[in-house]
Amino acid sequence: MLIGKVVGTLVSTHKEEKLKGLKFYVLQKLDMRGKPEGGYVVAVDAVGSGEGEYVIYASGSSARYTRQTEGKPADAAITGIIDTWDVDGAVQYDKSKDEARKGR
Amino acid sequence: MLIGKVVGTLVSTHKEEKLKGLKFYVLQKLDMRGKPEGGYVVAVDAVGSGEGEYVIYASGSSARYTRQTEGKPADAAITGIIDTWDVDGAVQYDKSKDEARKGR
Amino acid sequence: MLIGKVVGTLVSTHKEEKLKGLKFYVLQKLDMRGKPEGGYVVAVDAVGSGEGEYVIYASGSSARYTRQTEGKPADAAITGIIDTWDVDGAVQYDKSKDEARKGR
Amino acid sequence: MLIGKVVGTLVSTHKEEKLKGLKFYVLQKLDMRGKPEGGYVVAVDAVGSGEGEYVIYASGSSARYTRQTEGKPADAAITGIIDTWDVDGAVQYDKSKDEARKGR
Amino acid sequence: MLIGKVVGTLVSTHKEEKLKGLKFYVLQKLDMRGKPEGGYVVAVDAVGSGEGEYVIYASGSSARYTRQTEGKPADAAITGIIDTWDVDGAVQYDKSKDEARKGR
Repeated sequence: MLIGKVVGTLVSTHKEEKLKGLKFYVLQKLDMRGKPEGGYVVAVDAVGSGEGEYVIYASGSSARYTRQTEGKPADAAITGIIDTWDVDGAVQYDKSKDEARKGR
Repeated sequence: MLIGKVVGTLVSTHKEEKLKGLKFYVLQKLDMRGKPEGGYVVAVDAVGSGEGEYVIYASGSSARYTRQTEGKPADAAITGIIDTWDVDGAVQYDKSKDEARKGR
Repeated sequence: MLIGKVVGTLVSTHKEEKLKGLKFYVLQKLDMRGKPEGGYVVAVDAVGSGEGEYVIYASGSSARYTRQTEGKPADAAITGIIDTWDVDGAVQYDKSKDEARKGR
Repeated sequence: MLIGKVVGTLVSTHKEEKLKGLKFYVLQKLDMRGKPEGGYVVAVDAVGSGEGEYVIYASGSSARYTRQTEGKPADAAITGIIDTWDVDGAVQYDKSKDEARKGR
Repeated sequence: MLIGKVVGTLVSTHKEEKLKGLKFYVLQKLDMRGKPEGGYVVAVDAVGSGEGEYVIYASGSSARYTRQTEGKPADAAITGIIDTWDVDGAVQYDKSKDEARKGR
């Protein structure tokens, strides 16, 4: 899995039948320090995430193993909203602090 | 999924039996701002799209999960015609405005 | 799928049992203008193509969905000989003209 | 498979049902000399590894073929803790010496 | 498939149950001229190859379609020992000459 930030939404009314009802998010890919890197991906939301959130997503065939995407032509799916992650003992992101900072 | 623009057509009469009847489009890959980036891919059309349209496409095994491509040796399939997408609150593409501009 | 040109042959007598009888071609990958780009791949021929020809090939699991490669450890397969393709309204390659030029 | 070093942990309480109970590690990808290269990946631990360890991990659909990940939306899984590897006859890493050095 | 040279061995005693008994080789990836390019991969040996040999290997799900790797979490497998390959009519590698040169 890789880490991404939900930065936008994509709308397609004329699409493959099996994709109806799914929500497509534009994810900015992030490196392990939380910096934008590696471009973007359009992923199906499988966990009820929202814009601005940091998430992990699965690519390839594994993107079809969520309850929302099973048997559907999706090659990227958001599989978790991140609470926190650390690298070399240092916290890189903490959702609770991020939300406190934003006044939620 | 990634965003692409249909920029051309590819014709192959001598091909794998299972691919007969499918339409192959050349897609220019786009970044999340709508700029060309990352080269191209030849994708099977699974939604009745046309040249000049902005589409999303699935890669890898997921490209075989549309009704047109099931069980066929296709590793890229157009799965939706894009109406609109936004990034950081700003619309990057709007099909209705694009068509109005082109006088359709 | 991507576009490649058959530029060579690879011979392996000591190989996985299931691969016996298959023909391996070295493909130079091409960009959508027909220029070499992105290196090479060794692909199984599933359509009876030959050296010098322009072909499309499937990668990953989809390479196992031709009649020749089903259930076999091949991750790239030539799935069609290209007649012609165009980009932005301009023909990039035309097999009939290519052959006339070569005096076939 | 590729070689990685476990450099961190990722926590996601709100995630796909099937992923519950799995441990997510942040892996720094390494080249064959053991130097950081190629970024990172978030992998499911399938062997009981720990921070600081050198591991091999499988990507794509193969990441779903461990006992912990079967049928789950994981596209990367740690499949072994490395004891040692060599390149061109020279040892690149030796876990026993690494641990002796660290005083374990 | 891609071309690689067996340059090393990787040992992991603590690994996924299904991987027990398999041999892991470090492969230096080669371009179609036989020059090192594209880094390395750790592949399961499915054909009884040895260090110094030039081989083809399959990546992704196709790596699970050899007799040794079926149903196992391997994303790269050596599927053939190369005798020879040519590009643009020129031999790039010839195992018999290589061995004669080494005095075998």
